[in-house]
Amino acid sequence: MAASKMTAFGDRLSAAVRRTGNPVCVGLDPRWEQLPEALAAPVDSNDRTRCASAYVQFCRGVVDVVGGLVPVVKPQVAFFEQLGPAGMQALAETIAYARAAGLLVIVDGKRNDIGSTAEAYADAFLGADSPWGGDALTVSPYLGDDSLSPFVDVAVQRDAGLFVLAKTSNPGGGQFQDLACDERPLYVHVAEHIERLAAAHVGSCGYGPIGAVVGATYPQQMVDLRCIMPHAWLLVPGYGSQGATARDVAPAFDSNGLGAIVNNSRGIIFAQRRKEYSDKFAGGRWQEAIEAATREMIAHLRAETSAGKLSPN
Amino acid sequence: MAASKMTAFGDRLSAAVRRTGNPVCVGLDPRWEQLPEALAAPVDSNDRTRCASAYVQFCRGVVDVVGGLVPVVKPQVAFFEQLGPAGMQALAETIAYARAAGLLVIVDGKRNDIGSTAEAYADAFLGADSPWGGDALTVSPYLGDDSLSPFVDVAVQRDAGLFVLAKTSNPGGGQFQDLACDERPLYVHVAEHIERLAAAHVGSCGYGPIGAVVGATYPQQMVDLRCIMPHAWLLVPGYGSQGATARDVAPAFDSNGLGAIVNNSRGIIFAQRRKEYSDKFAGGRWQEAIEAATREMIAHLRAETSAGKLSPN
Repeated sequence: MAASKMTAFGDRLSAAVRRTGNPVCVGLDPRWEQLPEALAAPVDSNDRTRCASAYVQFCRGVVDVVGGLVPVVKPQVAFFEQLGPAGMQALAETIAYARAAGLLVIVDGKRNDIGSTAEAYADAFLGADSPWGGDALTVSPYLGDDSLSPFVDVAVQRDAGLFVLAKTSNPGGGQFQDLACDERPLYVHVAEHIERLAAAHVGSCGYGPIGAVVGATYPQQMVDLRCIMPHAWLLVPGYGSQGATARDVAPAFDSNGLGAIVNNSRGIIFAQRRKEYSDKFAGGRWQEAIEAATREMIAHLRAETSAGKLSPN
Repeated sequence: MAASKMTAFGDRLSAAVRRTGNPVCVGLDPRWEQLPEALAAPVDSNDRTRCASAYVQFCRGVVDVVGGLVPVVKPQVAFFEQLGPAGMQALAETIAYARAAGLLVIVDGKRNDIGSTAEAYADAFLGADSPWGGDALTVSPYLGDDSLSPFVDVAVQRDAGLFVLAKTSNPGGGQFQDLACDERPLYVHVAEHIERLAAAHVGSCGYGPIGAVVGATYPQQMVDLRCIMPHAWLLVPGYGSQGATARDVAPAFDSNGLGAIVNNSRGIIFAQRRKEYSDKFAGGRWQEAIEAATREMIAHLRAETSAGKLSPN
């Protein structure tokens, strides 16, 4: 599995954000019931192989639009897994297509297991030469340090990245994450560990390859978490459909407009279904809706956060 | 996705344990470097499709031996994912083969995500008619209640089961799980939540469809956790290769020999590599080693735990 030496993931992400002039991550969450009619209508939804082909067609269509606009996409494994083996083939094709379009790909799988099994997950997902070919993977911290270290080792070795769940964007995320342990919430303990991992492998951009998932739906905690993890890229979900605005995510960035990428899934890929776009981009014009929504999100983030200091694309 | 009404998962598991007279769960963890030589030697390890076929052949070989002996198998998704899409096809074939052999199948994926995505994972894995066709799935609790409830809803609806991580078997599992939150360790908070979910759907056997993963490597905590979760089946990893003995897992059982299943992966499926079997079952006799190791584990559990009260198979 030898790979030619590239650049550490933190620096690659930094370069991609600078090149595109924005920190938008487009979530590739192909939900069958929201697919553009032109793609879904001809397919029998009980035929998983044909549904999977429609997913590939859809995701390629998204990548064709956003490939020149944003630095990163994030396929959500759950929606591909929902179609069984055919869906996983579609995931592999989607990742390969996105990478070929010059996008960084964060595989959103929230994987983890005990050490020797974690190593198998890391080997599966991290790096261009891995079976799935992701640039980075989301992982869960519940199993502790010795479940994270195999991921870290593989990530560092292959110039890939990790985003460890710290504070998730869902309303119930606080049930365990906010529990006060030794006077600090659990998510702070997790964040302190992520910072140690990130700081141990800092690249020239000032950030390491190990980042954190920090939901945009908790702006106050985001302020704290940015301070606790000065060397960790933050992957920020919760923008748009989940309710967070550009102003809410501003604390995730450093003063140079780096340090955070902001994910939007439904609000971009299913933009045609948003009321402000449904008339304007009716029928087969779903890709135009995606482009408009992407440009709108870029503009809002550049207006309301330090990402506005990046040179525009 | 309509399925004919079966029996709730907790009761199905109870019936399977009673029928076989033991609580052994065989972990299907096909690690390439440990595969029997007869299966691995003819295959170029860079050819993922052929490796995946060898995994299917191996797992079928395991099922052929243990199908009549034990109630449950637990394929570990990581090792199949490590082979990319071909590996996932092998996983589907392995699950189908094990179910056809009358085994219950716990898919060990430790999945989770925010609500609407959790629903996709649940739909993917739970129930005979699902794309992967698992009887149960392991899930992670870090994202809290609203990430677990979609799994619970689908599990109840499809007579499938869940095993939520409470206390994992790895040495570093305590880093976060043992943190004292409001005077109780985090894993106790998680266990209390699991008990609520289990108790809400108790079947005629006294256990619900929502169980807990509780590592055998922490016997004292197992005593506490059995008390905290009287309605939850415990899935107990850590036996054998990870160091726990039959005596260590005794507290996981109720007085009737129910309430727990004990997993063993490497110690059974790669039994031929154990020093006590390597001479006796050399060469092509790997299935005989698996049978001997399975019977040995059954005997130890029946001798040292209340599982001895079950009628022998």
